[in-house]
Amino acid sequence: MADGGEWQRIAAVAAALGRAGRGGGVAWGIGDDAAVLRPRPGYDLLVTQDALVEDVHFRRRWTTAEDLAHKVLAVSVSDIAAMGGRPRFALVALALPPDVDLAWSEAFGRGLAAAARRFRLAVVGGDTVRSPGPLVADGVVLGEVGRGRARLRAGVRPGDRLVVTGTVGGAGAGLRLLDDPDLARRLPPTLAARARRRLLRPTPRVAAGRALAPAAGALVDLSDGLGGAVAALCRSSPVGVRIHADRVPVDPAAAAVARLLGQDPVDFALAAGEDYELLAAVAPRRAASLPALSPRAVEVGEAVDEAGAWLVRPDGSLSPLPGGYDAFAPPSERR
Amino acid sequence: MADGGEWQRIAAVAAALGRAGRGGGVAWGIGDDAAVLRPRPGYDLLVTQDALVEDVHFRRRWTTAEDLAHKVLAVSVSDIAAMGGRPRFALVALALPPDVDLAWSEAFGRGLAAAARRFRLAVVGGDTVRSPGPLVADGVVLGEVGRGRARLRAGVRPGDRLVVTGTVGGAGAGLRLLDDPDLARRLPPTLAARARRRLLRPTPRVAAGRALAPAAGALVDLSDGLGGAVAALCRSSPVGVRIHADRVPVDPAAAAVARLLGQDPVDFALAAGEDYELLAAVAPRRAASLPALSPRAVEVGEAVDEAGAWLVRPDGSLSPLPGGYDAFAPPSERR
Repeated sequence: MADGGEWQRIAAVAAALGRAGRGGGVAWGIGDDAAVLRPRPGYDLLVTQDALVEDVHFRRRWTTAEDLAHKVLAVSVSDIAAMGGRPRFALVALALPPDVDLAWSEAFGRGLAAAARRFRLAVVGGDTVRSPGPLVADGVVLGEVGRGRARLRAGVRPGDRLVVTGTVGGAGAGLRLLDDPDLARRLPPTLAARARRRLLRPTPRVAAGRALAPAAGALVDLSDGLGGAVAALCRSSPVGVRIHADRVPVDPAAAAVARLLGQDPVDFALAAGEDYELLAAVAPRRAASLPALSPRAVEVGEAVDEAGAWLVRPDGSLSPLPGGYDAFAPPSERR
Repeated sequence: MADGGEWQRIAAVAAALGRAGRGGGVAWGIGDDAAVLRPRPGYDLLVTQDALVEDVHFRRRWTTAEDLAHKVLAVSVSDIAAMGGRPRFALVALALPPDVDLAWSEAFGRGLAAAARRFRLAVVGGDTVRSPGPLVADGVVLGEVGRGRARLRAGVRPGDRLVVTGTVGGAGAGLRLLDDPDLARRLPPTLAARARRRLLRPTPRVAAGRALAPAAGALVDLSDGLGGAVAALCRSSPVGVRIHADRVPVDPAAAAVARLLGQDPVDFALAAGEDYELLAAVAPRRAASLPALSPRAVEVGEAVDEAGAWLVRPDGSLSPLPGGYDAFAPPSERR
């Protein structure tokens, strides 16, 4: 490697991290065989891992080192939020191709530090290795939640209201725009920027998750899209789900991109992924308290005792809910 | 993919795991946004992450799915051992190229289950994604150690005895043999098998680490070889180190391979990596108790107050200690 080897790149990431490697509950962070953490008594520990692979989940052409650092933490922080917890610690493994230089590693370290501050967690370890192929960033986030208070995907009951914490389809629109500059030029710049930001710099809903968890029977994030999240609930509980097309909060950028592509905005938004909002199932008697708990939460449908995930059109007709998501997969491979 | 997509491969790994996904302290394992763990009160939590990349750390030609599953846990368990802790939980992310079939995924899942039983930990999560390039396995192991009792690399004092928990160079010999079948044919089959096993199925020294930790000022594993471990101690404490060539417990397979290659066995063993033994620095007054604590521990040298890592030859001459390790790197890139 032109920059003189692995140690320099590791040192660059670690040096840029600075204070982001320390924090409450960290007895020893980066620099030994393992990190030493001191979880708070009375809390359960949450742990999740998400790998981002170049040309499967992102392209380096349109993802900066800072974007990738933000995202590799954000996707796992979103999992912690989907349990009703808050993030505390993170580790990140990087597999770096030879053409990644020292400047990229330094920028990645700075991006990790910024994301760690934003998500209020400490980066306590990881690994940096060579890759003879794509760049891979693999993040692990540890979180905490009051003992026995984690919200699972199971626990949905017929009659539960389904609410989402924000707009859907924006990240999917961003993906289309970044992979097709001609399409992007046909969209107002502010909408295009919004869509790209939804994809590259998602905001996990930690506060909303903590607010909704006590009222929710089940909680899941929209990493695989609203369609994917509904499918996850249906796999985990003996219920079916109906989503009302006219209530889905389609992101304005997603609506614009769908129209340019000649697709129905709701169908586009349901099949898109990576929005990192949350989907909660809330008992009807708790539904009245939702606006106070999470002002942006929108009711989009309900659980029913008939199996299956359905989209209810404004004319009352039912169609199978579009779902699943795989950024660059051909349609036949989509989940 | 011929096998019908990502879900099947994920399901194959998870199904093969079976009971290895459950255990004490696991409130919820695989299958939700995050795992929910209940660490024992009074213990610190240890966490470490290690990525293994095809053609950087292993070749699929000579690494079975079961071998890789064992190794991706073993290397991180070794880090926990090097803190004086015991492993409790693990997560593994896999990035799989299209030519990895369902049978491989099932075998990997079985291998993880076997390794989890052997290392007495529960596999509580992970991720499975596509790779357009090499196969990547990234393991995270969480362990526990009595509060405030983790052993760091820092803490070596001049006069400390340095002890290793087993033979060195065996895994390095295995790497040479697997990458050079002609060389392997010139070695007695039992020695060749021993060397391959040291590389592919390492045994992390959890019991030895727990036994040595109370007596040791510092503890580190030999993932980067004895030379690399000594370098790590010298970076972490204001000491130098002298290793006595005639006391280094060179693995018999390493000695045989070194002779075939026309190299000095001790030099070969010091520069080789991945033995996953431990190196402990022990105060002289504690040295007498070592045989009782860890019967296989061998004293190989001592810390001195002069900086630098040196090899003392039988004739009393000093030479810089060979160190660092990078499986397939050209010599110029070795650390």
